[in-house]
Amino acid sequence: MAEIIRKNGNGRYSETVEYNGTLYLSGIVGDTPYATVEQQTKETLAEIDRILEANGTDKEHILKAQVFLADIATVAEMNKVWDAWVVKGHEPVRICSESRLVSPAWRVEIMLEAVVK
Amino acid sequence: MAEIIRKNGNGRYSETVEYNGTLYLSGIVGDTPYATVEQQTKETLAEIDRILEANGTDKEHILKAQVFLADIATVAEMNKVWDAWVVKGHEPVRICSESRLVSPAWRVEIMLEAVVK
Amino acid sequence: MAEIIRKNGNGRYSETVEYNGTLYLSGIVGDTPYATVEQQTKETLAEIDRILEANGTDKEHILKAQVFLADIATVAEMNKVWDAWVVKGHEPVRICSESRLVSPAWRVEIMLEAVVK
Repeated sequence: MAEIIRKNGNGRYSETVEYNGTLYLSGIVGDTPYATVEQQTKETLAEIDRILEANGTDKEHILKAQVFLADIATVAEMNKVWDAWVVKGHEPVRICSESRLVSPAWRVEIMLEAVVK
Repeated sequence: MAEIIRKNGNGRYSETVEYNGTLYLSGIVGDTPYATVEQQTKETLAEIDRILEANGTDKEHILKAQVFLADIATVAEMNKVWDAWVVKGHEPVRICSESRLVSPAWRVEIMLEAVVK
Repeated sequence: MAEIIRKNGNGRYSETVEYNGTLYLSGIVGDTPYATVEQQTKETLAEIDRILEANGTDKEHILKAQVFLADIATVAEMNKVWDAWVVKGHEPVRICSESRLVSPAWRVEIMLEAVVK
């Protein structure tokens, strides 16, 4: 089998796991508790960009994204930020649904898988 | 790396992404807003059949399915349609849970991954 | 294409699907309906250990886990059991969110993907 590369584990989960050319990310949230969905989405996507870059890839190489919103009524607010961020012609598959997250401070969380270049 | 093949992107997500022999589908919903779960499940699975066929595969090659129901009380109604559709001996792994979806018009949404033949 | 190996299908889903070195598990729940989250998490993880072993792998080879809690207020109770179970240095990526499950008897469900050794 190919090597499994785990980074930034905290005893509960790893930030990333890479296996056989695919990079898995844990669910990512923003930096500012209780900020608006717009701000938390921007922070989440900036953190995703940072993690992808640290692993030698970028947002043009995302395969799949799962978006969790604590309140589905905020979907348009999230999508506005998402649509400005995603690279046209390189859209991943995606699903977006409502789930309360591990803290009420977080209104949006995104989990994704990407290809390592 | 193998080529990433994205189809039917809309600036937000792609309908499918294919990479290294695996086909990822975005979350699929039915055609008829506010129809029953039975009808929407039939429509969703018909659309999945169509997408799989358009990508050179079929429901016997599904690896994994995630089923979202806006109201978990409708799980038996969804399962009745699912069970009639899934090919015995070729069942994917599956999870089914409750999440409100991006519009209240949609009562069921299914996301899956399949092998390209 | 590599062979798809499906085990313990029940006409609705398979317990596991193996493809190209990756093992997919269906969502796993505990044994005891309406037991505490602590007990159900222990039962779920024991069942996961059993399934991984039956497929020639173990918890050091998990890539990705998705944890569903019927009540997110129980996250600390689940994490206490999870943290004692996960192998330090081998943490998968993970997301945890709230979703009602197919029966109110189940308070926690875990779906994951692992590498076959």
